[in-house]
Amino acid sequence: MLAKYNQRVDAVNSLLCVGLDSVFARIPDSYKQGMFPQFAFNRWIIDQTHRVVSAYKPNIAFYEARGEDGMRELKMTMDYLHERHPEIFTICDAKRGDIDSSSMGYAEAIFDWLGFDAVTLNPYMGQDALKPFLERRDKCSIILCRTSNKGAQDIQDLHVGKQRLWEVIAEKVANEWNTNENCMLVMGATYPAELKRARALVGDMTLLIPGIGTQGGSIQAVMEAGLNQHGQGLIINASRSILFGADPTKEAKRLREEINQHRAPNLL
Amino acid sequence: MLAKYNQRVDAVNSLLCVGLDSVFARIPDSYKQGMFPQFAFNRWIIDQTHRVVSAYKPNIAFYEARGEDGMRELKMTMDYLHERHPEIFTICDAKRGDIDSSSMGYAEAIFDWLGFDAVTLNPYMGQDALKPFLERRDKCSIILCRTSNKGAQDIQDLHVGKQRLWEVIAEKVANEWNTNENCMLVMGATYPAELKRARALVGDMTLLIPGIGTQGGSIQAVMEAGLNQHGQGLIINASRSILFGADPTKEAKRLREEINQHRAPNLL
Repeated sequence: MLAKYNQRVDAVNSLLCVGLDSVFARIPDSYKQGMFPQFAFNRWIIDQTHRVVSAYKPNIAFYEARGEDGMRELKMTMDYLHERHPEIFTICDAKRGDIDSSSMGYAEAIFDWLGFDAVTLNPYMGQDALKPFLERRDKCSIILCRTSNKGAQDIQDLHVGKQRLWEVIAEKVANEWNTNENCMLVMGATYPAELKRARALVGDMTLLIPGIGTQGGSIQAVMEAGLNQHGQGLIINASRSILFGADPTKEAKRLREEINQHRAPNLL
Repeated sequence: MLAKYNQRVDAVNSLLCVGLDSVFARIPDSYKQGMFPQFAFNRWIIDQTHRVVSAYKPNIAFYEARGEDGMRELKMTMDYLHERHPEIFTICDAKRGDIDSSSMGYAEAIFDWLGFDAVTLNPYMGQDALKPFLERRDKCSIILCRTSNKGAQDIQDLHVGKQRLWEVIAEKVANEWNTNENCMLVMGATYPAELKRARALVGDMTLLIPGIGTQGGSIQAVMEAGLNQHGQGLIINASRSILFGADPTKEAKRLREEINQHRAPNLL
């Protein structure tokens, strides 16, 4: 499944992921008046951006907020992607993690019912809680490591011996949890020093990078700190700056170009 | 909202919570053939057990597993509880935690659309990630501390200075995150020594205790370790042993009695 992402990166020469965080309150009124507002808006965003995009990442929270209607529209969005753009990698940003039988329920919802290629997961409950995801060799598990929010430091930066907690998690995922070679990590763009350290800890593992754009992370800093030795290994997400900006196509293209400007040197 | 739970405890003399973990594959065939299988099964369980129960706790994973249909039936279950038993405390076992705007989406779904009194939360992303829940004074935030699964030790038992990580979380919640006096902690029944330590760290705070019954936690050990000085402060959950046993009414009554046997001494 990682191969699917890398093939798409090569095909469209892009490390860009668009976060389909289609908050109902922020989508244009013209969509709100239709039958399926979040789906119709997503379809428009996909039509506008798919040529320069390697992955889409809806955060499921914004669909759950609308109850069963939102869940239906997330499903419609996924059906549309599967039909029109089956080569684009899909990530459900869900940050799940629960005891085995419950995690099994989430895996069913996200991998089987919705048909995502990957899911974001929370490591706090330990390896057995993530087993129903990790053992799916046909899917990717993307584990929270050092997140992009300010409060990330509260818990993730606690010192465990000489390391910080997030470093312990990075090593555990790389050395113990990745037996099926289907793991990735979430590393916030807003902390490039930590990103550089994570790259040193996990080798070529692919990292999902939220936090550029509205949250303020710098693309140059991310690229310098995060690329692996093949000039890949990053999924760089932008959400609000594309979805709610003046021109989604233009902004997606601009971001791809800016990312690629900093990608070339590592390939030399 | 904590008052709602304590009033119900007094009214029915029970610390028992029933986990409405209505896994589709395990509900009787007679329900599976109806229009709303999970809802119809839940209604039956509620009718059978409400007289001896202070709280209900569906794990949302088992509803999401069935997509929009499952979400609709969870909503129907909540509507039924609100109409028939508005005095019973309701907990959405969801283990959420995400950056602010996403957590806001979950809070909307769980508190406003579904109408739960409380939600379980994951602390890994820090205080700001839980703010949309914590600042709801009309609702309770129940934060994962030391969970009941075997893998809990992987991360939660890591040493942070002289403490284990879960102890740091317990203190943070008690001393920093509980400014609205609406926080509780999840402490697994399968680790009574840890439960005793948690009680010492957090004073009279209410603790949600999963893991008796099928998971093997002992009620006696939980009661000896976990009661607060008022002979309360515990929400003791049983799911599968009630839902999928021979007689839900009898099992719920039996559990209430067994819990109460160990409750009396502390009140003397």
